[in-house]
Amino acid sequence: MAGNTFGEVFKITTFGESHGVSVGVIVDGVTPGVEINEAYIQKQMDRRKPGQSSVTTPRKEYDVVHIQSGVFEGKTTGTPLFVVLQNHDMRPEAYSEIQDAFRPGHADFTYLEKYGIRDHRGSGRASGRETAARVAGGAIARKLLERRGVQVVAYTKEIGGIRCESFDEGVIEQNAVRACDPIAADKMIKKIEGLAEIGDSCGGIVECRIRGVVPGLGEPVFDKLDAELAKAMLSIGAVKGIEFGAGFEAATMLGSEHNDAMNSDGFLTNHSGGIIGGISTGQEIVFRISVKPTSSISVPQQTTNIKGEEQEIRTEGRHDPCICPRIVPVVEAMACLVLEDQYKRQAAMLG
Amino acid sequence: MAGNTFGEVFKITTFGESHGVSVGVIVDGVTPGVEINEAYIQKQMDRRKPGQSSVTTPRKEYDVVHIQSGVFEGKTTGTPLFVVLQNHDMRPEAYSEIQDAFRPGHADFTYLEKYGIRDHRGSGRASGRETAARVAGGAIARKLLERRGVQVVAYTKEIGGIRCESFDEGVIEQNAVRACDPIAADKMIKKIEGLAEIGDSCGGIVECRIRGVVPGLGEPVFDKLDAELAKAMLSIGAVKGIEFGAGFEAATMLGSEHNDAMNSDGFLTNHSGGIIGGISTGQEIVFRISVKPTSSISVPQQTTNIKGEEQEIRTEGRHDPCICPRIVPVVEAMACLVLEDQYKRQAAMLG
Amino acid sequence: MAGNTFGEVFKITTFGESHGVSVGVIVDGVTPGVEINEAYIQKQMDRRKPGQSSVTTPRKEYDVVHIQSGVFEGKTTGTPLFVVLQNHDMRPEAYSEIQDAFRPGHADFTYLEKYGIRDHRGSGRASGRETAARVAGGAIARKLLERRGVQVVAYTKEIGGIRCESFDEGVIEQNAVRACDPIAADKMIKKIEGLAEIGDSCGGIVECRIRGVVPGLGEPVFDKLDAELAKAMLSIGAVKGIEFGAGFEAATMLGSEHNDAMNSDGFLTNHSGGIIGGISTGQEIVFRISVKPTSSISVPQQTTNIKGEEQEIRTEGRHDPCICPRIVPVVEAMACLVLEDQYKRQAAMLG
Amino acid sequence: MAGNTFGEVFKITTFGESHGVSVGVIVDGVTPGVEINEAYIQKQMDRRKPGQSSVTTPRKEYDVVHIQSGVFEGKTTGTPLFVVLQNHDMRPEAYSEIQDAFRPGHADFTYLEKYGIRDHRGSGRASGRETAARVAGGAIARKLLERRGVQVVAYTKEIGGIRCESFDEGVIEQNAVRACDPIAADKMIKKIEGLAEIGDSCGGIVECRIRGVVPGLGEPVFDKLDAELAKAMLSIGAVKGIEFGAGFEAATMLGSEHNDAMNSDGFLTNHSGGIIGGISTGQEIVFRISVKPTSSISVPQQTTNIKGEEQEIRTEGRHDPCICPRIVPVVEAMACLVLEDQYKRQAAMLG
Repeated sequence: MAGNTFGEVFKITTFGESHGVSVGVIVDGVTPGVEINEAYIQKQMDRRKPGQSSVTTPRKEYDVVHIQSGVFEGKTTGTPLFVVLQNHDMRPEAYSEIQDAFRPGHADFTYLEKYGIRDHRGSGRASGRETAARVAGGAIARKLLERRGVQVVAYTKEIGGIRCESFDEGVIEQNAVRACDPIAADKMIKKIEGLAEIGDSCGGIVECRIRGVVPGLGEPVFDKLDAELAKAMLSIGAVKGIEFGAGFEAATMLGSEHNDAMNSDGFLTNHSGGIIGGISTGQEIVFRISVKPTSSISVPQQTTNIKGEEQEIRTEGRHDPCICPRIVPVVEAMACLVLEDQYKRQAAMLG
Repeated sequence: MAGNTFGEVFKITTFGESHGVSVGVIVDGVTPGVEINEAYIQKQMDRRKPGQSSVTTPRKEYDVVHIQSGVFEGKTTGTPLFVVLQNHDMRPEAYSEIQDAFRPGHADFTYLEKYGIRDHRGSGRASGRETAARVAGGAIARKLLERRGVQVVAYTKEIGGIRCESFDEGVIEQNAVRACDPIAADKMIKKIEGLAEIGDSCGGIVECRIRGVVPGLGEPVFDKLDAELAKAMLSIGAVKGIEFGAGFEAATMLGSEHNDAMNSDGFLTNHSGGIIGGISTGQEIVFRISVKPTSSISVPQQTTNIKGEEQEIRTEGRHDPCICPRIVPVVEAMACLVLEDQYKRQAAMLG
Repeated sequence: MAGNTFGEVFKITTFGESHGVSVGVIVDGVTPGVEINEAYIQKQMDRRKPGQSSVTTPRKEYDVVHIQSGVFEGKTTGTPLFVVLQNHDMRPEAYSEIQDAFRPGHADFTYLEKYGIRDHRGSGRASGRETAARVAGGAIARKLLERRGVQVVAYTKEIGGIRCESFDEGVIEQNAVRACDPIAADKMIKKIEGLAEIGDSCGGIVECRIRGVVPGLGEPVFDKLDAELAKAMLSIGAVKGIEFGAGFEAATMLGSEHNDAMNSDGFLTNHSGGIIGGISTGQEIVFRISVKPTSSISVPQQTTNIKGEEQEIRTEGRHDPCICPRIVPVVEAMACLVLEDQYKRQAAMLG
Repeated sequence: MAGNTFGEVFKITTFGESHGVSVGVIVDGVTPGVEINEAYIQKQMDRRKPGQSSVTTPRKEYDVVHIQSGVFEGKTTGTPLFVVLQNHDMRPEAYSEIQDAFRPGHADFTYLEKYGIRDHRGSGRASGRETAARVAGGAIARKLLERRGVQVVAYTKEIGGIRCESFDEGVIEQNAVRACDPIAADKMIKKIEGLAEIGDSCGGIVECRIRGVVPGLGEPVFDKLDAELAKAMLSIGAVKGIEFGAGFEAATMLGSEHNDAMNSDGFLTNHSGGIIGGISTGQEIVFRISVKPTSSISVPQQTTNIKGEEQEIRTEGRHDPCICPRIVPVVEAMACLVLEDQYKRQAAMLG
């Protein structure tokens, strides 16, 4: 079956293509009686929107939030909450010249193979535009998590080989790349600007830290907390990998190094990333994702088209040379969705 | 809700604890009319079982396969196929002395936090024993995939910092660590034997290659093929990370390097790992997982018990110093489950 | 978890309250490449809308269909199809005087008990208005079923004790009550008009016949075709019962009477209603539902309010004295949703 | 996808054919820490087993309950609870002579059409034997519901046209037909014995009353409490209809008659059957099901076989002339499964 629903108890179902009329989300399983308003969601939308700085695409997506159901007199009613975002920047003609070509790195070829038909306008459903609906849905989850004392913070850890050497949460939203180290941030911005000039792009690493989660979340054996987070993150277009805690470095460690010892104050280390046996330990949950370089570049590339003919292609247009800064709110949104769902699943088991 | 079912259309539901009477699996959604027998499943079980060599635990789990429903006169009937494996090596008394302590790296603490009750015998449901049911279910999926021409091969890529330098598929099942490079395999075995002597353990990296998959599998936007594989792999106890294709290296590449160009013969590279936009490209699917060092070690470690008292612990008993060799068939089983499910989901959409 | 999604493979998720901004539906799992347009859906919407005749409420719900995603150049793309219907007749003030009272027969009391909060405007989510989204989603299913040669026809069998004595499919859409017998239809209309004058209401029986279904649909043991149809029908607000084939009369028959014998031309009778063992036989599928009298009546009734005070209530306003004529397209829509889903589930199993 | 799992949060997955090695059930989502033992489940199994009296088949199915996982030291652990029942009365040869014929009223024809293959031994998966696993799973649900103060009681209301005129809950388990009126019970038994002599069978009506349910259960708009109960009941082999409260009689009532008025003590009537808008009112939940006459009769019947040849058939063997008495515990089991699931779904929403 099709895969446009995420979550089991707290769940979102999304729709919308890059250049359609709208994108939107139905959120089902919302706790009733919770105060929510459009401004709260809008704040998250604004973090994802393009055109925030010199390093992101100047395309204008207004992404004005409209709640059309599930809220009555400022409070959730427990019935489906529907949020719609009108598309205001539909310029499908910008894509007509490449409509038959398979852009390297894009899902043009695979979508056509899967469905036998393809909405070529701005990648259609495969566009990053789709994540706007995730952020809207994630904002509802974030609101519910706030009541539980849970905080989800993602940030850029590395871009184009430049790695943050320090961690200062306060600077994340203060720099254009959402890095946790202001000095590295400056270097990253220069790197991106340089790539933009030559029409190329680069990847990076985004880290996410989640605090305030109770011990005991996660549903073994298949729906473990890390398994669900991994699915959530890999479902984001540009993500190519994920690791928890020590992650791939765990492969080179000894058991006596990796095991997190405990004393009466709790765990002494957090190599596990806050999840053991697929269940939260109550420590900070930490994971990192690998973000591939933006596929849309104006450097000439070799490809074919739907007739099987070879051709050269340059993807002109307005694109982020590095997607990390804008993927940060999407990572947070997906993490929020997983967590709220797991809280409710735990409540279901015990209830 | 609880998470002991995996898959949407082709799905397995498992039960069983380490030291209970049995572990088993109900496989639902099986194509009817397919020849299947216990020997076929047994072959996969034997690859997972302990005691295969000097580098694995000498515990004897016979894991004799019994099909109790869903097969009639040697063929699947389309009704639920039930496979049960009796436990023959139940020695719960071996665990009584540590029943109140939280073994570092183990899920003792988190299970107790989640459920408020814990079967302490050999990790109970959190034991690797549980994966026997996955391998049994995965064998059914593998059988169905064979008819589609799909081959799934996993192997050890790295153990204790020793990395395979060559790839020879023919040697994988010929060495005790299931490495793809016989020279590295020898070094790995020596490394593991050395760690066994001092009661420590090590981690590693397992790689999986899947061939023969048609382009077009995967269910955007949330149930992408890589998202489902990521969930499947992270649901395996010791796995701490996953990466597809270029993976974490993609973070340091330029778009012009990472994008897989095409000519009339197809893709020129496979940095994507055979999946773009969450849909198979028809190329080889390639991913790697990070396996943490075995948690059970006899090196003394600091921990606490259920009364909050600090204590030192040494996990005696029979344990694999490195789980990579035995995780290989589990990785394959989970990959088979994801793929057969995705094939059937694609059939559902088009049907 | 909340229950606003229906179907497993072909599935709809709906939102919207009676007096909110809009109601709508996301249809996921749509076969790609199928021609669909708004006019096709509109036709079904118009059958459900109020104000069609003297026997239905004069409220105006324009129910103008807007497809906002999932269709490209007139064809489905396989991505989520979103249909929205703006509400144009929002007059919440009409309900303010009864906002604290529990209207007998309505879900006022139970919604408040469940959610602890209630959108009192025109029953909120519990309003029949919600079925507009079902009819829109069902129209997509109907389109796909047409390609399979399946026809779904529902009609009024009985209203206020007046029963159709003949069956003429051609007259169903020609009379205001959608009865299959024009003479009975006239009597029913008079009955309803009489009740409208005194502010009372009546119930009835709607029958549904489905032709052209292949043998073999239905998913034992729990998701049998009749089980899914029963759930679908009982999920419609006013439905209090369902029976298949001989139905409740089967309780008084002998096995030798009820069993449907076969000869080389097929079944000789259809007491089963076209479903045996939860699987379609290939015969006509026949079921009937019991529809309760409309709850909103202006006859004075005894009730209480949210403060526990007793009061008399008269539900003024514009309401159908009998809901049968307008429930007919909803029954058809739900039946279409079940069938298309079952066809796809069968394709999944065999695929 | 296949349909051998029931429930969303509290869910069962079953397997097993009439003449296979075993039937069984995995129960997932069980509240941890609850005392449960095999004797408790056995008690329900014994109510369902054949051979309880002169009016049921003398076949011996020992149905000895074995719990193989999910319980530790007498308490549930929150991990999957597996219950298996060995089949001890496998006599497939008894069916060899009719293996190619389609027995009227049985699912022989439809199973073959669906799966293309059929386990002909005693109806295979389509056998009533399958309900043993439901009763085992339902017993776990019943145990959890006891803690909530919920009581589920089903009984025979009518058999072969003989209707109970009184209701005495105390007599239900005291008579062979599980009727609520001892005088009617005697007549029913005579009726059944008479039919047994001539090799025919009859149907009946079973009623179910559920007490102690809190107001607020049910998940609109699709997973309403009555919708889920309807699905559950129609998923039982011989059931051909269901009605809640006034049921089909509601079709002939006026709104002023059917609406349940309220005063400060609560509802004055219960025409709704304890469910309004798909949500429990807190009143007694009441529904009735129509049970068709047993399909297996020794009266000669006309049918065809898999080669399309016409033939006469007499289903010899040991069969219940009326299935009502033995369907009673199955109805209760399914009702318990629905209710416990709904309680947990409500906890999830609020949690």
